[in-house]
Amino acid sequence: MQIPHDPGSLSAADARALFRDGLAVPTTGWCAGSTQANTITLPKEYAFDFLLFAQRNPKPCPVLDVLDAGEVSGALLAGDLRTDIPRYRVYRDGELVDEPTDVLAYWRDDLVTFLLGCSFTFEHPLLAAGIPVRHLGCGRNVPMYVTGRRCRSAGRLAGPLVVSMRPIPADRVADAVRISSRYPAVHGAPVHVGDPRSLGIADLDRPEFGEPPVIEEGDVPVFWACGVTPQAMVMEARPPLAITHAPGYMLITDARDTQYQIP
Amino acid sequence: MQIPHDPGSLSAADARALFRDGLAVPTTGWCAGSTQANTITLPKEYAFDFLLFAQRNPKPCPVLDVLDAGEVSGALLAGDLRTDIPRYRVYRDGELVDEPTDVLAYWRDDLVTFLLGCSFTFEHPLLAAGIPVRHLGCGRNVPMYVTGRRCRSAGRLAGPLVVSMRPIPADRVADAVRISSRYPAVHGAPVHVGDPRSLGIADLDRPEFGEPPVIEEGDVPVFWACGVTPQAMVMEARPPLAITHAPGYMLITDARDTQYQIP
Repeated sequence: MQIPHDPGSLSAADARALFRDGLAVPTTGWCAGSTQANTITLPKEYAFDFLLFAQRNPKPCPVLDVLDAGEVSGALLAGDLRTDIPRYRVYRDGELVDEPTDVLAYWRDDLVTFLLGCSFTFEHPLLAAGIPVRHLGCGRNVPMYVTGRRCRSAGRLAGPLVVSMRPIPADRVADAVRISSRYPAVHGAPVHVGDPRSLGIADLDRPEFGEPPVIEEGDVPVFWACGVTPQAMVMEARPPLAITHAPGYMLITDARDTQYQIP
Repeated sequence: MQIPHDPGSLSAADARALFRDGLAVPTTGWCAGSTQANTITLPKEYAFDFLLFAQRNPKPCPVLDVLDAGEVSGALLAGDLRTDIPRYRVYRDGELVDEPTDVLAYWRDDLVTFLLGCSFTFEHPLLAAGIPVRHLGCGRNVPMYVTGRRCRSAGRLAGPLVVSMRPIPADRVADAVRISSRYPAVHGAPVHVGDPRSLGIADLDRPEFGEPPVIEEGDVPVFWACGVTPQAMVMEARPPLAITHAPGYMLITDARDTQYQIP
């Protein structure tokens, strides 16, 4: 399966067709203007706890939509959730047991799926403002870190905050804050600027998810709340089954980024 | 029990103490700067459906906080939810069965409470901008109407959109939109401006909740999504038990309106 020459210009439907056929690549930079989403699918008995976890932690878990039990498509997704993500993660009792390119074999009618906003949405406006997005420039996945900060717990669900990091030139940090804050439904403004240690991150070169960053002279590390936070929660709270996207391998939805922009 | 001379200057805690002692009045204009909230309390078996209903209908149902099953206080409320609202409504199987000034006799440990934003939050900024808020000026409760628009349903829960209406001088309508849109967590921008009939409202003088409006020459009716929407849903979906505030008799929380303002 070949990576298309210009993935940024693909439609969401065309990109999902490639992923349905087995292409498994990170989706950063794909389908400019189409909203990408983090996903987590849980048994219905965990659905209230998770929706409450998201409500209590809206920066890492901004809910874009919820599919009813057993549903595999919805208003934001004309395709099939079980096949249209490039790579999945399957957790049993909090242990990662599989990273398949579809989850047809794991599907059950009692599974409820949550679509959460993704910071890729504001990468295009950052670029449009002339702010470099380093991982895009070198074709890497964004680096993601488990922090020392705790999320507010909800019922049986608890876990740490996960952040994504983008190195931003010091003279553009304020612009990056200003621009991303206009997208509160997709993580919004950074949770932290500079000083990784005070977030509990010992080594920027060793992210827990994604790939190591490319940091240039004069860059400041800027941290945004990350939609991989539910996966860190799953590892700690250990529900019997959880299905997610693989970090950086997102669901490309039929929504448009402009829908999530505030004035 | 006397109504205080200047309720706008009271603290939230002092106001709640008066309500706990039995004072039962609408809270519009009370405790300037303190966030007022709509409430709905449901059995835990309905909690997921309701949280999803709120997520799918964020304009009428903006969730400020959720109290765990059996809890009567929380981060936004140092007091006691069962006594600190001036007047309640109790619904059994969708029928209004009581309008008490406390709900101690109805309380159970399986009840989950949702606090929802209230448009009273942006009445102070409207006034500060010189926009008249007619019902405040004449000491009435705000008029609220059941519309012909349907909410998105969630599980067993479905119902119509309820709106509050404020008559706004035509040359200040744009300002009222602009100012209220800065408070998306408390209903935000209007859902409708002018033409009540296209919302399915036959007669502005006969609101389903609150009191009839005072409309002056040159005013345009402006409609905001209303936190009484869950009560209209309860009447239609008929859960076995639901406890709410009485329309216009809000919970005054310890949160500050400024927390819910976006730039």
